Amino acid sequence: MTEINIDQIRFDEKGLVPVITQSYYSGKVLMQAYANREAILKTVETGFATYYSRSRNELWIKGETSGNKQRVVDIRVDCDGDSVLYLVVDYGVACHTGKESCFYRDIDFKEKEKPDPYEILHALYKKIEERKEKRPEGSYVAKLFSKGSDKIIQKVGEEAVETVIALKNRDKNEIVYEASDLVFHLLIALVDSGVKLEDIQEELLKRYK
Amino acid sequence: MTEINIDQIRFDEKGLVPVITQSYYSGKVLMQAYANREAILKTVETGFATYYSRSRNELWIKGETSGNKQRVVDIRVDCDGDSVLYLVVDYGVACHTGKESCFYRDIDFKEKEKPDPYEILHALYKKIEERKEKRPEGSYVAKLFSKGSDKIIQKVGEEAVETVIALKNRDKNEIVYEASDLVFHLLIALVDSGVKLEDIQEELLKRYK
Repeated sequence: MTEINIDQIRFDEKGLVPVITQSYYSGKVLMQAYANREAILKTVETGFATYYSRSRNELWIKGETSGNKQRVVDIRVDCDGDSVLYLVVDYGVACHTGKESCFYRDIDFKEKEKPDPYEILHALYKKIEERKEKRPEGSYVAKLFSKGSDKIIQKVGEEAVETVIALKNRDKNEIVYEASDLVFHLLIALVDSGVKLEDIQEELLKRYK
Repeated sequence: MTEINIDQIRFDEKGLVPVITQSYYSGKVLMQAYANREAILKTVETGFATYYSRSRNELWIKGETSGNKQRVVDIRVDCDGDSVLYLVVDYGVACHTGKESCFYRDIDFKEKEKPDPYEILHALYKKIEERKEKRPEGSYVAKLFSKGSDKIIQKVGEEAVETVIALKNRDKNEIVYEASDLVFHLLIALVDSGVKLEDIQEELLKRYK
């Protein structure tokens, strides 16, 4: 983000452009706000998401009061230059309600309970961390953590062998079930060993050529 | 999406609300456009993304001419009701340039070449499909496909065993490397057996309680 080309951004008659803010690692759309020229330049300069508040008519450095600053890894511009995307990390929560994302309700205005498919690995990872910490009764994951690391690692091996058998059987339903079990137990093992999902994503990016 | 509460959406003085369109399975932000009341109602009614074209001043059923319709799985509304998120599947490409997403350029207006971390599994899956089909020389994945399914399945087992050893060694770098290798080869095996990544995501969602 050293070089920028701000004159290609098409601000509207009020000097604003809509900004979408998305989590770089989970893909979650966190919020949608607006920026003027100064806000974009400030974001590039500081590395933290800056917007323009239409209600207060002023530059708005997100998290300046709440502490939930958004570190901007990348800024995208759409095909006709009139919409901007901030990709952020270390953002805490984006919504003033305390929710991670402002888009936490369906169009019936009821809160949605399940994560979306694109974010399922991150959602499961978080849930596993929670189970590890709180050890609720009846939780399979909590039980596994109580049995210790060897048991967790053993499960990774077991699920891998079951996946191999499913692949050999060429049974799609069985493959889906066993491969999911393998991924799920791999996530448990990652939590157990303190490896972040983000590190795996970065490593996989290196395999993309 | 049977019940809706459209009166809680806050349209602006022109009767419009910004709409962000996101891929339900990969998380990719595809485009940002606008909708009026009628466009939202039509989207709910038909199940296909409908917008309001500000340049043509008319309702715009995305893909009606290009064929790239967007099937809407879910509609989200943000905390203060003045921004909407369409979650879509089977969308082909969203951009008039033929790109999957309109946000294909960085703020320096140069095209970005690598996928973002949140979409890495889908990006790798696609790349593996491409390698399988085109078999370019020197490609590791192409070579593996030439050796056949048994070799691919064997690699899943091997990488799983290497992951188990890394986990036992409690070496974070080794774990990151081997777990990534395991996931990578699992993706190859899924492509080989015709299992979609989306099916694994849906199965994992069932494990989220």
